[in-house]
Amino acid sequence: MASSYVHGYDENARARLQDQARSLVDMLHSDTSYPAGSTVLEAGCGTGAQTVTLARNSPGARITSIDVSAMHLEEARARVKTAGLTNVEFQEADLFALLAGEESFDHVFVCFVLEHLSRPREALAVLKGLLRPGGSITLIEGDHGSAYFHPDSEAAREAIGCQVELQRRAGGNANIGREVYPLLVGAGFKRVRVSPRMVYADASRPDLVDGFTRKTFTAMIEGVREAALAAGIVKSERFDNGIKALYRTAEADGVFCYTFFKGVGEK
Amino acid sequence: MASSYVHGYDENARARLQDQARSLVDMLHSDTSYPAGSTVLEAGCGTGAQTVTLARNSPGARITSIDVSAMHLEEARARVKTAGLTNVEFQEADLFALLAGEESFDHVFVCFVLEHLSRPREALAVLKGLLRPGGSITLIEGDHGSAYFHPDSEAAREAIGCQVELQRRAGGNANIGREVYPLLVGAGFKRVRVSPRMVYADASRPDLVDGFTRKTFTAMIEGVREAALAAGIVKSERFDNGIKALYRTAEADGVFCYTFFKGVGEK
Repeated sequence: MASSYVHGYDENARARLQDQARSLVDMLHSDTSYPAGSTVLEAGCGTGAQTVTLARNSPGARITSIDVSAMHLEEARARVKTAGLTNVEFQEADLFALLAGEESFDHVFVCFVLEHLSRPREALAVLKGLLRPGGSITLIEGDHGSAYFHPDSEAAREAIGCQVELQRRAGGNANIGREVYPLLVGAGFKRVRVSPRMVYADASRPDLVDGFTRKTFTAMIEGVREAALAAGIVKSERFDNGIKALYRTAEADGVFCYTFFKGVGEK
Repeated sequence: MASSYVHGYDENARARLQDQARSLVDMLHSDTSYPAGSTVLEAGCGTGAQTVTLARNSPGARITSIDVSAMHLEEARARVKTAGLTNVEFQEADLFALLAGEESFDHVFVCFVLEHLSRPREALAVLKGLLRPGGSITLIEGDHGSAYFHPDSEAAREAIGCQVELQRRAGGNANIGREVYPLLVGAGFKRVRVSPRMVYADASRPDLVDGFTRKTFTAMIEGVREAALAAGIVKSERFDNGIKALYRTAEADGVFCYTFFKGVGEK
């Protein structure tokens, strides 16, 4: 994997880097670029939210994006087509059924997928089998336990806990980000390097406050309201107070922190 | 304030940067350097742990380090002398009694001090009064609410909570790091920029695991054992299990995360 992203580094550059990240996607993906001619497997592409960035940042690579959901693949196909990208092939497939084509990919890319799986270690073992020796894996996951904010609020923490609990009941782990290193090492990948990507949003970074605190994180937690109430995890008033408290952290004196973990390893 | 710290930036550089930080002090201080001839007030120098770095990184600046404790100042003086530094003057003084010498300093530096004060906003107002117009303030604080780890452990979180509770009872706030931005803005400083400094320690970074996870953070929490038991906040077995769980995160498959916040503002 080539890193084509080099520029001056100092505190101001670091701040600018974060400011300029037009979106979360930039912050997570801008340092991933695969060489022309290489073959890349994107495992669990969903509706293609990451696929477009992946394909754009590696225009010469041949990307195979798989997902178990035909409906999601339909949306991903449309997205990639709208973006004018032609280097992606889609396949409906279950990760665990991918036994053919062993050791055929130069690189594997997995983003926001393991958090939903009950057997993340086994999934990594399957993906390792699909990589050629010397090939790389890139793994990106969030971690809801990394969320903290000002003003602090117990109700807000409980609302986040609803999402964590629902994901747990569905067999997943919303706090998997911190485990990226042990997961990759445990699956036998070599030269594993993990770098945290912390989103820090205060009023001096209005784009992040709006784009991340409000429209990404809080909107996502707000989205589990009905499921959390139906599951009896929380009372409606308590949940709504938590959401209100999360939006409160996007005010002028508020601060919101969240960390994603990006790991790279070699076979 | 001049930043003399510029080098290539990419993911590898970021990783190396963290690896090469010989200590926590480097990670926090390496981008703070004051011009020759400038006057710097270090408010709350304690035993001089930060003073030595501050004076070394700004050899031409004239630093005045104050503290309320004569005993601490004695230790700080010895430390600075042993380091062969001659650009520091010490003064026994209470921050809130510093009314003389208004607007006389070019820069103010405050590290791990506000977390112990019951009136952090008022302290910043006093410090602002001591700065010349156009002068800078640099503020560094940790945040115990930013600590999370793998394997996760409720007992470990409770042990950390003991330190937070003891500090709260003493009038302080161990989770103040996330408030650096609103505190500086609230005190009327301009062009406030806050950058988080996340310590991420996994087995690929053995120096950080040993130097930070074991010997800095866990040792610090372990240090409040007697006080926490005496205050009746926790049972001894529970606390000891928490400490054991924190040391467990320093094993080969463990991960430990903690974030410091560094803010700079201008008068």
